[in-house]
Amino acid sequence: MTTSYNRLDKDNAAVLLVDHQAGLLSLVRDIDPDRFKNNVLALADLAKYFELPTILTTSFETGPNGPLMPELKTLFPDAPYIARPGQINAWDNEDFVKAIKATGKKQLIIAGVVTEVCVAFPALSALAEGFEVFVVTDASGTFNELTRQSAWDRMSSSGAQLMTWFGLACELHRDWRNDVEGLATLFSNHIPDYRNLMTSYNTLTSAK
Amino acid sequence: MTTSYNRLDKDNAAVLLVDHQAGLLSLVRDIDPDRFKNNVLALADLAKYFELPTILTTSFETGPNGPLMPELKTLFPDAPYIARPGQINAWDNEDFVKAIKATGKKQLIIAGVVTEVCVAFPALSALAEGFEVFVVTDASGTFNELTRQSAWDRMSSSGAQLMTWFGLACELHRDWRNDVEGLATLFSNHIPDYRNLMTSYNTLTSAK
Amino acid sequence: MTTSYNRLDKDNAAVLLVDHQAGLLSLVRDIDPDRFKNNVLALADLAKYFELPTILTTSFETGPNGPLMPELKTLFPDAPYIARPGQINAWDNEDFVKAIKATGKKQLIIAGVVTEVCVAFPALSALAEGFEVFVVTDASGTFNELTRQSAWDRMSSSGAQLMTWFGLACELHRDWRNDVEGLATLFSNHIPDYRNLMTSYNTLTSAK
Amino acid sequence: MTTSYNRLDKDNAAVLLVDHQAGLLSLVRDIDPDRFKNNVLALADLAKYFELPTILTTSFETGPNGPLMPELKTLFPDAPYIARPGQINAWDNEDFVKAIKATGKKQLIIAGVVTEVCVAFPALSALAEGFEVFVVTDASGTFNELTRQSAWDRMSSSGAQLMTWFGLACELHRDWRNDVEGLATLFSNHIPDYRNLMTSYNTLTSAK
Amino acid sequence: MTTSYNRLDKDNAAVLLVDHQAGLLSLVRDIDPDRFKNNVLALADLAKYFELPTILTTSFETGPNGPLMPELKTLFPDAPYIARPGQINAWDNEDFVKAIKATGKKQLIIAGVVTEVCVAFPALSALAEGFEVFVVTDASGTFNELTRQSAWDRMSSSGAQLMTWFGLACELHRDWRNDVEGLATLFSNHIPDYRNLMTSYNTLTSAK
Amino acid sequence: MTTSYNRLDKDNAAVLLVDHQAGLLSLVRDIDPDRFKNNVLALADLAKYFELPTILTTSFETGPNGPLMPELKTLFPDAPYIARPGQINAWDNEDFVKAIKATGKKQLIIAGVVTEVCVAFPALSALAEGFEVFVVTDASGTFNELTRQSAWDRMSSSGAQLMTWFGLACELHRDWRNDVEGLATLFSNHIPDYRNLMTSYNTLTSAK
Amino acid sequence: MTTSYNRLDKDNAAVLLVDHQAGLLSLVRDIDPDRFKNNVLALADLAKYFELPTILTTSFETGPNGPLMPELKTLFPDAPYIARPGQINAWDNEDFVKAIKATGKKQLIIAGVVTEVCVAFPALSALAEGFEVFVVTDASGTFNELTRQSAWDRMSSSGAQLMTWFGLACELHRDWRNDVEGLATLFSNHIPDYRNLMTSYNTLTSAK
Amino acid sequence: MTTSYNRLDKDNAAVLLVDHQAGLLSLVRDIDPDRFKNNVLALADLAKYFELPTILTTSFETGPNGPLMPELKTLFPDAPYIARPGQINAWDNEDFVKAIKATGKKQLIIAGVVTEVCVAFPALSALAEGFEVFVVTDASGTFNELTRQSAWDRMSSSGAQLMTWFGLACELHRDWRNDVEGLATLFSNHIPDYRNLMTSYNTLTSAK
Repeated sequence: MTTSYNRLDKDNAAVLLVDHQAGLLSLVRDIDPDRFKNNVLALADLAKYFELPTILTTSFETGPNGPLMPELKTLFPDAPYIARPGQINAWDNEDFVKAIKATGKKQLIIAGVVTEVCVAFPALSALAEGFEVFVVTDASGTFNELTRQSAWDRMSSSGAQLMTWFGLACELHRDWRNDVEGLATLFSNHIPDYRNLMTSYNTLTSAK
Repeated sequence: MTTSYNRLDKDNAAVLLVDHQAGLLSLVRDIDPDRFKNNVLALADLAKYFELPTILTTSFETGPNGPLMPELKTLFPDAPYIARPGQINAWDNEDFVKAIKATGKKQLIIAGVVTEVCVAFPALSALAEGFEVFVVTDASGTFNELTRQSAWDRMSSSGAQLMTWFGLACELHRDWRNDVEGLATLFSNHIPDYRNLMTSYNTLTSAK
Repeated sequence: MTTSYNRLDKDNAAVLLVDHQAGLLSLVRDIDPDRFKNNVLALADLAKYFELPTILTTSFETGPNGPLMPELKTLFPDAPYIARPGQINAWDNEDFVKAIKATGKKQLIIAGVVTEVCVAFPALSALAEGFEVFVVTDASGTFNELTRQSAWDRMSSSGAQLMTWFGLACELHRDWRNDVEGLATLFSNHIPDYRNLMTSYNTLTSAK
Repeated sequence: MTTSYNRLDKDNAAVLLVDHQAGLLSLVRDIDPDRFKNNVLALADLAKYFELPTILTTSFETGPNGPLMPELKTLFPDAPYIARPGQINAWDNEDFVKAIKATGKKQLIIAGVVTEVCVAFPALSALAEGFEVFVVTDASGTFNELTRQSAWDRMSSSGAQLMTWFGLACELHRDWRNDVEGLATLFSNHIPDYRNLMTSYNTLTSAK
Repeated sequence: MTTSYNRLDKDNAAVLLVDHQAGLLSLVRDIDPDRFKNNVLALADLAKYFELPTILTTSFETGPNGPLMPELKTLFPDAPYIARPGQINAWDNEDFVKAIKATGKKQLIIAGVVTEVCVAFPALSALAEGFEVFVVTDASGTFNELTRQSAWDRMSSSGAQLMTWFGLACELHRDWRNDVEGLATLFSNHIPDYRNLMTSYNTLTSAK
Repeated sequence: MTTSYNRLDKDNAAVLLVDHQAGLLSLVRDIDPDRFKNNVLALADLAKYFELPTILTTSFETGPNGPLMPELKTLFPDAPYIARPGQINAWDNEDFVKAIKATGKKQLIIAGVVTEVCVAFPALSALAEGFEVFVVTDASGTFNELTRQSAWDRMSSSGAQLMTWFGLACELHRDWRNDVEGLATLFSNHIPDYRNLMTSYNTLTSAK
Repeated sequence: MTTSYNRLDKDNAAVLLVDHQAGLLSLVRDIDPDRFKNNVLALADLAKYFELPTILTTSFETGPNGPLMPELKTLFPDAPYIARPGQINAWDNEDFVKAIKATGKKQLIIAGVVTEVCVAFPALSALAEGFEVFVVTDASGTFNELTRQSAWDRMSSSGAQLMTWFGLACELHRDWRNDVEGLATLFSNHIPDYRNLMTSYNTLTSAK
Repeated sequence: MTTSYNRLDKDNAAVLLVDHQAGLLSLVRDIDPDRFKNNVLALADLAKYFELPTILTTSFETGPNGPLMPELKTLFPDAPYIARPGQINAWDNEDFVKAIKATGKKQLIIAGVVTEVCVAFPALSALAEGFEVFVVTDASGTFNELTRQSAWDRMSSSGAQLMTWFGLACELHRDWRNDVEGLATLFSNHIPDYRNLMTSYNTLTSAK
């Protein structure tokens, strides 16, 4: 009995960044803030790098939830940006779903704050409509580990695939030869250990 | 292949609070007591807020298990209250099941102490009778993490959905515009980080 | 869609205690030794209490693996005792399987050391032959948490149910009224928090 | 309802060691380095001991990823060694798949660095082609526990079996009588607690 | 050789609450937010209960640091309230020190956010001027455990005594007979486990 | 520069067991309950074994704090037993101090619940009167690790020595030859790992 | 009895950055790499911001220890840079000590990799020569927590003060009014939670 | 005020290895067994490498405590070996102290199992006789972290210096130029991360 491998394809994938807002970020306590900020920016950088259609959305951004992380606005100046007037599940917002369908992609990469709501709700809605869903677990944050584990269990049981940004980048890239420097730069900017490897390597090889 | 999204519907859901008794609470060691007390009261407040039919039950409350948390009695003075004479699985008590069926709801939200018994047993019984079951993992407590993980695995494998009270509230509410103030008050009363956001926000906006 | 609830039935269950040997116990590092010893003895006591047919087996007990915990020998002087000459999977030993089948029970409660071998192998074999399998996760120990999680995943994926001794006792007992004192004694002997509740309760009520 | 037990068979299994390279090893932070090094060498020793066909592969070994752990090269001087020119998923490399198919084995034991990429990608590819896949979780490492848990969930959901090297050795060996000394030596070399048991045992029995 | 016991004396102690502001509270990650909020309010309640002179101070409260927790303002409407215009070490603010000296007390109980700055700086300044300093470690929060441990080491090395609110209450109260009900109420309001004990006790004794 | 070694001397030491009461024990969350119960009983057993004068005291035992652990009463039927009418610091109770002075010992071994109050207060009082104080850290419990660390810092800074029951037993015993069997029995009864060593050892040596 | 407060003074302090080299950084496992990188850069930025004389040194940078983090070279192009030919304790290198003494400062702020060697050795040497030493604990890394705790104990016992970069910045700055924007920028660049506060604050106040 | 730096001097130091016996090692649970075994062997290797006089001692090695780790016997065939007939504190054994004094060294490096007994007792005795004591914390093991922390506090308060084997090696070696290859080999054999650095470095530089 074989199992199908729903493999990410950069020509068939879109990225949804849901509610990474300054206020909501203060609720995230299942990941250290330095690490979490880095993960979100890494995901944004990879979306950019692979030129994946990217959609931004926020919930009540004029209230205590606060404005979108400014870095995301800067990175995606032309992306569809849906400031939802009230819908908690972004999928309940017609503009959001329209924007997704306009991309024509069938693989949805989703990250957001908080995991069990802003990520899980649209993930479950998308699965119910036949999309393949890839949750970026390390660019999604929530109150604590217990909540995260509950949310993962619910999404995984419904068929969502749990991935982290590094695996995402690798699966999308397929082969280093497609662009060694581009991928290495992405890694160097977001993985201190990898940057160290490159620093040592470059010093030694340029010293030849 | 699509996956159905069994989404909570406030018109089709009932809440079962099982054995949150003063004695049994001293057995709960997988969640910090300040956090656990807050989670249970948050769940009770949301049941109240969404006017979900709520059913209280206790096990042997005149023995060492002790009386129900008084706050729950106060919050739900008119709720069905089943002091079980001996049945460990609340579902084995006819009055309990009758009270559930009397609500006419098909979605059951269950929390209790301890997770692997007072929650898992009625959850598995309810699933076997065709109900949709939502376990409130952070308002259910037990001896330690190993026990919790075993209980979650058993319930999840049988089709129960694992959620926390915050996700529950969001999925039931659907849209902030249904009542901004009500939901915000619920969050402010039970999420210190959210309360802080609101304090700062209100100060700044009222200062205008 | 309903899910069947494979509920433990004391008239249809047998207990398999696999390789709780003095040497092997020094390999167990995923559970604190005071807690683990207590869990194993609690499981043994409950097997005794519910008069479940119990089968003991050891692996190479004359070598470094060491003899069976003496407490188990003492508790079950007449139980089938299979000192396996070499088979690592107890199910590969004909006498062991014969002893199980002789009980006529279809629900097997298994605990042992180490989890991913002495428990998982016979659990998977039993499932393949159509038994219902209940793994007692807190009376089974292994090298570390990573190993435990791998073993649980393998067993759960094949249909084993993960339980702890307390849940087991509750599911087997069904109703406190079947014997309040017996069950309370079992809990008091193996759950310090419950013993404390009973001490306070008894003092207060006898003082009346 | 029975569940099939896909049991490891030493006559039908091959081992794939993917990208255990000096540079990449510095990325592994979900397992302590002393323990991880020991696990990888234990897996290599058992592949050797059971004479399982073993295939080595590396990714970009002349760059910062660094050379293969020298111990592995030394242990398997004649094994197929595929230094991939760029493919991230080893399964995308024809020579790698050819080498696997040349073994004629249907059970693949996979370990590598990092888990969610170098292990998960070929594991998912192999499952999709009908192989049985056994992931050696403790000889596979990655950035942190959150990443590991995501990777495990993805592989397990697709049917991969999660095992650790000790369970692997036990399932392959089947019966101590096949070679007591060989297996005991393997354990003594890689499990300090087991070595201690043997030291005490040997001293006491040789003192007779 | 004897060691002097600098014992808290309710007639010689004042409480300093430093910078418990809505914005700064989002920086606290070494204590769970539910627990931290409870600890701060418990400290405030005990200051009230023992009628200790209490001084409130804030840093830049009109900027991102945010306003003081409203609960504190409400509890101490008449306490000296020093909104510092810029001094980071509250002791550098003359009004603050003047308010302390006006109390005539020699024992200072200090709590604040963040521990290594808002607590440690005035604590070290006070010690240098000959005050006895009692740091309320569980009502003081900071970025992470490493930071907390560094701050504790610095303060303890200079002679500050590290205490938690419960110990403080007990040392100030000296004897339950001074007011059983008052102290019990304080504990019941801020220690869920103690509240449970009281619930069970009251039920049993009132049932007589 | 030499440092004096204040070494425990069984002819000069007394044991104080402070407030190990059924209710208060439910507050202890910095040590697992199975382990804590074992540690307290181990300390009691060693006091008995070394025939150290032992003094029991309780706080408000007729209220929610509950009665003394019955095991302690049974073990020390003739020990001074001071049920304090209200003093929180046992040293404030004249009978308690009188009982201590009546022993004529200068080394006080103290354990109790909770650490920062019932242990720390009398420890600091005793140090101030010139006693040598040995705190039994693993037979003393409290709310959480933060509280424990604060209490340890306060006591250690005042000159108390922090020990655990095993070290205590070893320092009191001095030489195995004083009574091999007695000490070994104490260890076997309270250290599962040591019991396992003895089981294996006895089996192998008696098999000769 | 008063205790002197050795308070940091920006006119009397120098910064020593010891061995933050690409190879050695891979040894650091007591702090998450994203956090550690951020801490080191924050310390460097604050040295720059307060214009503290800063000295860089490396150990064997042409060998496996690797080159200095390039960011540090870039930030301090004109700082004394001592590439030590072999001395492990930087204080054994005359040029290093000469550079320190040339600054004329008596307060030394030290950070480095690994804590117990590259930080502790020069710290102990400097203390022995009468300098005040401030260890930046969160910009110093080592193998694991056990090693860190040992190193801290050794340094603290000799009089070193343990601080983190944030406390350092606050103690050096003294008063926000000295430069609100400068300090806020430093915090915003290195504390994601603080950046979020500022983002929300700025949005709300600029919206007026 | 200066603080003396009691710096290790390889011409004035001796190593004491106390009770690293096969049975006692099974009691060590505060350090992972792979890591602990490595640390003990690293300490032994460095004693050998620096030609420090080394003394071995055991407690009751013919009983359940078991024989000395064979590796230590092999490494130090000619070292004084004191099999103590019963003294728990090795310093109470005249031969042991005589052997130490015969070395003429004033700095004692001590490691052993278990920390609070076999290490702490001789450490405190040696300090009382005027020796400088360096405890090798990572080559000393005990039951759990609570016990370790208590033991460290007791030793540190008496003036013992807490170090780990790596710091020891660095402080003894002083300057890489004394023998680059020797020290690098020691590190490569016992620090996997350092070995990886060397592997990459050697490959790159030999490739030139």
